[in-house]
Amino acid sequence: MKETQPSVGESDLQDQKVQDYQSALGVTRTQTVTLRSVQVQSGFKFDQVDVTYQTLGTLSAKRDNAILVCHALSGTAHVAGLHPDTGRPGWWDFHVGPGKSIDTNKFFVICSNALGGCDGTTGPMSLQPGTGKPYGTDFPPVTVRDMVAVQAKLIEHLGISRLFAVIGGSMGGMQALAWAVNFPELVRVCIPIATCASHNAMQIAFNEIGRRAIITDPNWNNGNYTSDCRPNHGLAVARMVGHVTYLSEYAMTRKFGRTLQPPVNAADTDEGLFTVESYLHHQGESFVTRFDPNSYLYLTKALDQFDLFDGEPPEEVLRRVKARFLVISFASDWLYPPAQSRELVRLLKRARASATYINLETLYGHDSFLIQNPDFANVVRHYLDNEYRNPHFKDATPTI
Amino acid sequence: MKETQPSVGESDLQDQKVQDYQSALGVTRTQTVTLRSVQVQSGFKFDQVDVTYQTLGTLSAKRDNAILVCHALSGTAHVAGLHPDTGRPGWWDFHVGPGKSIDTNKFFVICSNALGGCDGTTGPMSLQPGTGKPYGTDFPPVTVRDMVAVQAKLIEHLGISRLFAVIGGSMGGMQALAWAVNFPELVRVCIPIATCASHNAMQIAFNEIGRRAIITDPNWNNGNYTSDCRPNHGLAVARMVGHVTYLSEYAMTRKFGRTLQPPVNAADTDEGLFTVESYLHHQGESFVTRFDPNSYLYLTKALDQFDLFDGEPPEEVLRRVKARFLVISFASDWLYPPAQSRELVRLLKRARASATYINLETLYGHDSFLIQNPDFANVVRHYLDNEYRNPHFKDATPTI
Repeated sequence: MKETQPSVGESDLQDQKVQDYQSALGVTRTQTVTLRSVQVQSGFKFDQVDVTYQTLGTLSAKRDNAILVCHALSGTAHVAGLHPDTGRPGWWDFHVGPGKSIDTNKFFVICSNALGGCDGTTGPMSLQPGTGKPYGTDFPPVTVRDMVAVQAKLIEHLGISRLFAVIGGSMGGMQALAWAVNFPELVRVCIPIATCASHNAMQIAFNEIGRRAIITDPNWNNGNYTSDCRPNHGLAVARMVGHVTYLSEYAMTRKFGRTLQPPVNAADTDEGLFTVESYLHHQGESFVTRFDPNSYLYLTKALDQFDLFDGEPPEEVLRRVKARFLVISFASDWLYPPAQSRELVRLLKRARASATYINLETLYGHDSFLIQNPDFANVVRHYLDNEYRNPHFKDATPTI
Repeated sequence: MKETQPSVGESDLQDQKVQDYQSALGVTRTQTVTLRSVQVQSGFKFDQVDVTYQTLGTLSAKRDNAILVCHALSGTAHVAGLHPDTGRPGWWDFHVGPGKSIDTNKFFVICSNALGGCDGTTGPMSLQPGTGKPYGTDFPPVTVRDMVAVQAKLIEHLGISRLFAVIGGSMGGMQALAWAVNFPELVRVCIPIATCASHNAMQIAFNEIGRRAIITDPNWNNGNYTSDCRPNHGLAVARMVGHVTYLSEYAMTRKFGRTLQPPVNAADTDEGLFTVESYLHHQGESFVTRFDPNSYLYLTKALDQFDLFDGEPPEEVLRRVKARFLVISFASDWLYPPAQSRELVRLLKRARASATYINLETLYGHDSFLIQNPDFANVVRHYLDNEYRNPHFKDATPTI
């Protein structure tokens, strides 16, 4: 089987042709469950919430092998295998599959589109019941904890009373952390990757630039845009900002340097631009075909407002967790710098939680968690396998 | 005299009240000279170019004490002293003045608005002769070398045959470098600060995001906007992007952290936002009152296209320079990282040029060159004073 790096993920850094790509999982599909009466932190109560999700592998008889994979801002429920419509591999196909680091021969993998998203789960572009119109900005504010609460209902629907592991990068990592804190009895292993307990001012600033680009696009129209008149320019600029922050100077220099864009055809307005400019245009333009501008506003706001401790002393919050943690950061990630992960690990250890930390020396910035890397794969594989073979529980660790 | 940090410069990080600020120079004014028949690198010939500039101090009888200060992207000719209209201090008032590191008791300081700018020197918002309409996008592409060539004509107009020094940060640093390469006989000392010999892909990418925000603003109208219908939203987003890249995570955490914006009045739409968001809105909104969107496009493009070596072997280019160099970078500057300055110094030394390098351990990112700092001031002061007292010339250095 030929395996090339799939073109997936937060920034689509690896923009290879995917037509030759073969997934060990073949074509995979998502399904959707409707949850009734879901109240979110703001107090708003949804009559119904659709949750689109994918499962891979088989739930064990003991129902003890479920791994919830949480996607990042621009991710989807389609975590692995080929998409039935586009033929594109899932965003973590290199991680999830038979024999992969998250081995579907061993584990039952679940990935659901986040609440507020735009890939099947209820979000701002879903129709508001009784009106036939999208929620738009009538959608209530959602939080990372709301996303996690909806996932908990999905898990229950799937007949799983306890997850073996929750894993995710960036926004997915925040969800993993929120799981461990909010549902301490339901999580054995927590693997937050390239993430943090709360955004710093710079992380908020970059998100706000993207939001500002969207809401000052006249087509945004206070969130009441139509499908043929969307704030695509604003969303494309937002994506370009995000995209650059996901990369590293090294990755951009290596991929683009100062090369100029050759002419593609007579109508090519990008001719003579630097390749990196043309690439960013393409990233912006392709993003608007698959992402909802209002969803971008809601999800980035949820990220900025997330605070794992919510004003409580971190030690008290973390003393309640029972999960064992593998915290992963990337040395070249300047958007979610390793210092944030180190601080998280320090707090976990102070609270006597089990925490293993690894800072991987990759060169691709924040996007490293979406790029195939044997070290990364091995760290995840060995931790999961070891924990699954030798289950530890927090209450079995010595209390001092 | 009370001296506080003026609110000036690339990012206006220090947003203090300026009403109490006293400049040792008092009110200073700019003047404008009209140059005839100026051809730029693109081949376009201007019938006339207005150059707005400021001079401070007195030209010595030997005419050997002139220092040209080159401003950064958003700077102006008003380098020091109080602006006669706004009362605001010049962007380098803390550096330039009697007894300051660039001592106007000793030196004759010149600062001119760059070609393509929007503070008096001919640029896209200037009226195109014979039409009564602004150039807009009929303005020819301009380069950093064009800016420098216009400055050279200004110097000639002022009766100066040789500059003692050229100094500038960021875009101003590129100009200083271009001076040393293009007018080797005319520059004794070159002080490029927080700059580089050419932009890398990441620097281009951030500029392109800003440009894209401007040109996709419907009000941009292919550059033919009117003063009451300008692409202000696009320019504000561009400024917000630039602004964040000028700062450091440390500076933003220290200034804003995760504090929330208190209500200012009933109509305050920023209430409940993070302070950093509200601050960025303010920065974007204030920038559009003083900067021309087309000028932003032209100047950032000039920065991206600048290449000190233009395809020639660096060693050959730098063997022609006669200036002595003081290269300054800032440890926390992630937009113009110190590695770029180190590489420049390495190339200068390989070419047997005199180069002193200092990487200052400031915490304020790229903006450090616009923030008062005794170490920075002392480095500049001592280098200038020493060179002025003990003039060295490249032809007096040993050849090996």
